[in-house]
Amino acid sequence: MRARGENEMPSYRAPVEDVLFLLNDVLAIRRYDNLPGFSDASEDVLEALLNEGGKLAGSVFAPVNLEGDQEGCQRHPDGSVTTPEGYKAAYKAYAEGGWAGLSVPEEYGGQGLPHVLNTAISEFASGANLALTMYPGLTQGAIAALLVHGSDQQKQTYIPKMVEGAWTGTMNLTEPHCGTDLGMLKTKAVPNADGSYALTGTKIFISAGEHDLASNIVHLVIARIEGAPAGTKGISLFVVPKFLVNEDGSVGERNGVSCGSIEHKMGIHGNATCVMNYDGARGWLVGAENKGLAAMFVMMNEARLAVGVQGLAQSEAAYQNAVAYARERLQGRSLTGAKSPDKPADPIIVHPDVRRTLMQIRAFNEGARALMLWTALQSDIAHRSGDEKERRTADDLLGLLTPVVKGVLTDKGFANAVEAQQMFGGHGYIEEWGMSQFVRDARIAMIYEGANGIQAMDLIGRKLPKDGGRAMMTFLGEVQGFIKDHDEDAALKSFTGPLQAGVNDLQAATMWLMQNAMAKPDHAGAGATDYMHLLGLVAIGYMWGRIAKAAATKAAEGGDAARMEARLATGRFYMERMLPETALRLIRIKAGSETTMALAAEAF
Amino acid sequence: MRARGENEMPSYRAPVEDVLFLLNDVLAIRRYDNLPGFSDASEDVLEALLNEGGKLAGSVFAPVNLEGDQEGCQRHPDGSVTTPEGYKAAYKAYAEGGWAGLSVPEEYGGQGLPHVLNTAISEFASGANLALTMYPGLTQGAIAALLVHGSDQQKQTYIPKMVEGAWTGTMNLTEPHCGTDLGMLKTKAVPNADGSYALTGTKIFISAGEHDLASNIVHLVIARIEGAPAGTKGISLFVVPKFLVNEDGSVGERNGVSCGSIEHKMGIHGNATCVMNYDGARGWLVGAENKGLAAMFVMMNEARLAVGVQGLAQSEAAYQNAVAYARERLQGRSLTGAKSPDKPADPIIVHPDVRRTLMQIRAFNEGARALMLWTALQSDIAHRSGDEKERRTADDLLGLLTPVVKGVLTDKGFANAVEAQQMFGGHGYIEEWGMSQFVRDARIAMIYEGANGIQAMDLIGRKLPKDGGRAMMTFLGEVQGFIKDHDEDAALKSFTGPLQAGVNDLQAATMWLMQNAMAKPDHAGAGATDYMHLLGLVAIGYMWGRIAKAAATKAAEGGDAARMEARLATGRFYMERMLPETALRLIRIKAGSETTMALAAEAF
Repeated sequence: MRARGENEMPSYRAPVEDVLFLLNDVLAIRRYDNLPGFSDASEDVLEALLNEGGKLAGSVFAPVNLEGDQEGCQRHPDGSVTTPEGYKAAYKAYAEGGWAGLSVPEEYGGQGLPHVLNTAISEFASGANLALTMYPGLTQGAIAALLVHGSDQQKQTYIPKMVEGAWTGTMNLTEPHCGTDLGMLKTKAVPNADGSYALTGTKIFISAGEHDLASNIVHLVIARIEGAPAGTKGISLFVVPKFLVNEDGSVGERNGVSCGSIEHKMGIHGNATCVMNYDGARGWLVGAENKGLAAMFVMMNEARLAVGVQGLAQSEAAYQNAVAYARERLQGRSLTGAKSPDKPADPIIVHPDVRRTLMQIRAFNEGARALMLWTALQSDIAHRSGDEKERRTADDLLGLLTPVVKGVLTDKGFANAVEAQQMFGGHGYIEEWGMSQFVRDARIAMIYEGANGIQAMDLIGRKLPKDGGRAMMTFLGEVQGFIKDHDEDAALKSFTGPLQAGVNDLQAATMWLMQNAMAKPDHAGAGATDYMHLLGLVAIGYMWGRIAKAAATKAAEGGDAARMEARLATGRFYMERMLPETALRLIRIKAGSETTMALAAEAF
Repeated sequence: MRARGENEMPSYRAPVEDVLFLLNDVLAIRRYDNLPGFSDASEDVLEALLNEGGKLAGSVFAPVNLEGDQEGCQRHPDGSVTTPEGYKAAYKAYAEGGWAGLSVPEEYGGQGLPHVLNTAISEFASGANLALTMYPGLTQGAIAALLVHGSDQQKQTYIPKMVEGAWTGTMNLTEPHCGTDLGMLKTKAVPNADGSYALTGTKIFISAGEHDLASNIVHLVIARIEGAPAGTKGISLFVVPKFLVNEDGSVGERNGVSCGSIEHKMGIHGNATCVMNYDGARGWLVGAENKGLAAMFVMMNEARLAVGVQGLAQSEAAYQNAVAYARERLQGRSLTGAKSPDKPADPIIVHPDVRRTLMQIRAFNEGARALMLWTALQSDIAHRSGDEKERRTADDLLGLLTPVVKGVLTDKGFANAVEAQQMFGGHGYIEEWGMSQFVRDARIAMIYEGANGIQAMDLIGRKLPKDGGRAMMTFLGEVQGFIKDHDEDAALKSFTGPLQAGVNDLQAATMWLMQNAMAKPDHAGAGATDYMHLLGLVAIGYMWGRIAKAAATKAAEGGDAARMEARLATGRFYMERMLPETALRLIRIKAGSETTMALAAEAF
């Protein structure tokens, strides 16, 4: 076949207009100017930073995405790893742009801007090049963990270097026999005389574990101190640099940690997924002994949101390329008469089934983007507000929504990438066109940082019952408040009605679980994934309500009417065709676990 | 990470017991012993052939699947193509086993057995190794087209060699600028003095277009004879052998057709997807001039069913490996107390969310297998019955169900492979474990032989309205008859009730389309995919009704009670959790096309 032409390479254009609309008009970010860092992100600054970040994504990260996938990473006999051609230069542009420190406190060299802004930029970077973005992405998690649990000396030693982009970070959790069940971990830490520890063991699936983009790599590693209790109660967190750091902060001798091999994966080929061997490597305890799990969860929660963002990002990238193809590819005629009679056929965007596909992805993307930013904003409020009640409420919502953002945005993000690929027919299956890469790359987001089934269990088993269900009551209260406030608004009727139906399903499911899952926990497990998606559907539906409200207001004020009308139509599509899935989810939840658990393990 | 061990390689065990149960107990195949070939497939012969076919799949095709994916095909500078190591020997075993001629008439060297048996064997082979199975699979389509439209001489020249497996066949339809819209094709055929034609043009995405498994390749090619009308009315079908065939049937000189390149694809790496260049290649008209489309549809319909089978096959293969993993992988403890207290953790099959995944795939696979075999049986009846009315009814059902089997079995087959992969956590993303391959291979089935959106349009635009909706009335009549016949049967109550609800949704959707889509064809287009899945849900639901009836009967008669109980529980899972999706599909269909078509093409 004709190869995809130069000017037809998969491309990425950051959705800057949408983010600005969401931040300014929907989430009314200016209301939070009392929080530290927010007033620095004035309207002009926001716009300038988003445009800059968008440019980095579209013109620096995206151009090396397809080739990076085809080339992949190479591990050399000495254990060093090289990234694909062009990654170094792109990473350098990222580091020099100061993006790694966007929302890190200024005392460590960062800019102290809101995390919600950082989240928007993460979507751009991940959409343009997921494998590359993971290198600095994991660094963000390492910074977050050290900020909360590190000693002053640890913070001063590692964070500024990571903020500069000179060093990167990793998370070392998984071992061959333990993924989800970290209590089974075997990596051992033995105290050295100088207060450090000697770590020995093998970690697997370590993203960005070894590479050539930075002069040092800061590994955050969980291990069991000799003599510590078995299970999760005996887990401690350590910082283990690839190169030991001299007194003056310069890079010293090589530590006893090395990359034993890299994985041959379905996607994210440009990111090295490493087996890391610790052979008496020197590490320093982060936080308290045997309290590693809590420290790890700081990284983990940060990472889970970031992974949700990745799911949305791949959905957006795939969507943009599908739109471009649908406008150009000529095939068949419109059912309502030729639309391009001068051409041999109409562009396929005239076909309703193609439109359905595009609308479905678009309606998800815009609603999910709002949910992602709203959740990130909760993180800002929870960490920066001076008001305890406000902090608590934000923290409740953040906890409740984190597994939803992770699980739903990656499940649907992947499904959308598949739908976008489908529109290309046979060309979608050919690697040169880039649609396969979006699918293969999106696939990992459903798996790592806790597979989506684990997110569902976290939601239903921890977040939902916590504090007597306070978080869910907060969420429901907010959504019901929105419906009530706009009940009389004729322009929003096609939004509030379906949203109420969705809320009813969510309440019924929650009630059913409260009444039935206590006595029989299998009922909760059997309904967990459906419950996570049910909450996701309603949360995105709520976002669409708020988007519609803002769009109607803006259109009435004369602001970009065409774009606002498009938003309202897209939102109505969501309400009509997507939100009603809540009823199906409720049916499944209420079916309980009887048939799910009916077979003996041997009968499968 | 620890590589997957030798004895843990992805494996495949043909579902022989299930096929025998479906053929003997559910579809009562013995009722068709009056049709040619059926009585030859006696109970013993059926069992023996299925066991043999299963053995071929599990011990010859499956062992070269993973390595074939990793090695892929090679095109050499002379245009020749080599298949992966081990493919030749596996193909030889297939050819020597006589499998290519299983349901081909005996006068061409075949065994004349029912197509339904051939279909079951196809599932086994495709599940074990899709890329390899496509070589003989495409040959089946070529044989079918020649049987219906070829001259006696063409049949005698080509079919026996393909039945032997000495030669293989291909379908050459797609060109760079035309996939679905074949009216745009440019390949030209100019009459030669000797009655043959000289074909010139480029075909793309030609599966098995060039390879080293057979001594000749029989290309069936559509082209436009010089001076023929534009569009689909000017398409003719030609047979173009790679090597011209001498008078005595031996292979002669090379024809002017060659492989210009092979594609770098997401999956099915072991199958060469070729650009085929025709440079004045000699071809012979198959059937009448300008009637190529009809002839092509013989291949196409055959191929569409076969592709549906591939979707199911990958789902089954992925399921089997997920079950094995779920039994072995120790992680976490059961919510209801440790199930393997002697081990460091319970096997993950104890977790309800893992069970839900397995049940969901299993419930689909068993129901879809029944639907696939029932549809193949309609093909047998339509082609072999002496009774005109019986033939007509079978042909109606075959036409109606073909797009459903193609579209639904591949959409769900892929989704199931993804779900099965998910259960492996990070290991699922590593190529050595084989789960990625199931996903990547399954992906193509949604695309080729008419992307699934095209199947949906074929269903709603052609098959549904044809003959005043006779086919759908036949289908609904049959399902309603089943419900009525078993209305009083207490053992089947949990099946007939939900099935009636599904049928109601299907009827309401059909009615809505009749009333609305005539005036506004976009309504049909916007609802097409949902309608295809709605019909698929009900058709599989109907199959589950029949399976439950047969299982209950057999259990009562003392036949393998444990297996029958497992079937009934699996069927109840389908009825409770999967069939209710019909309501969501109906809501979407009734939403019509307004919001779907609301945006201008520029607004995307």
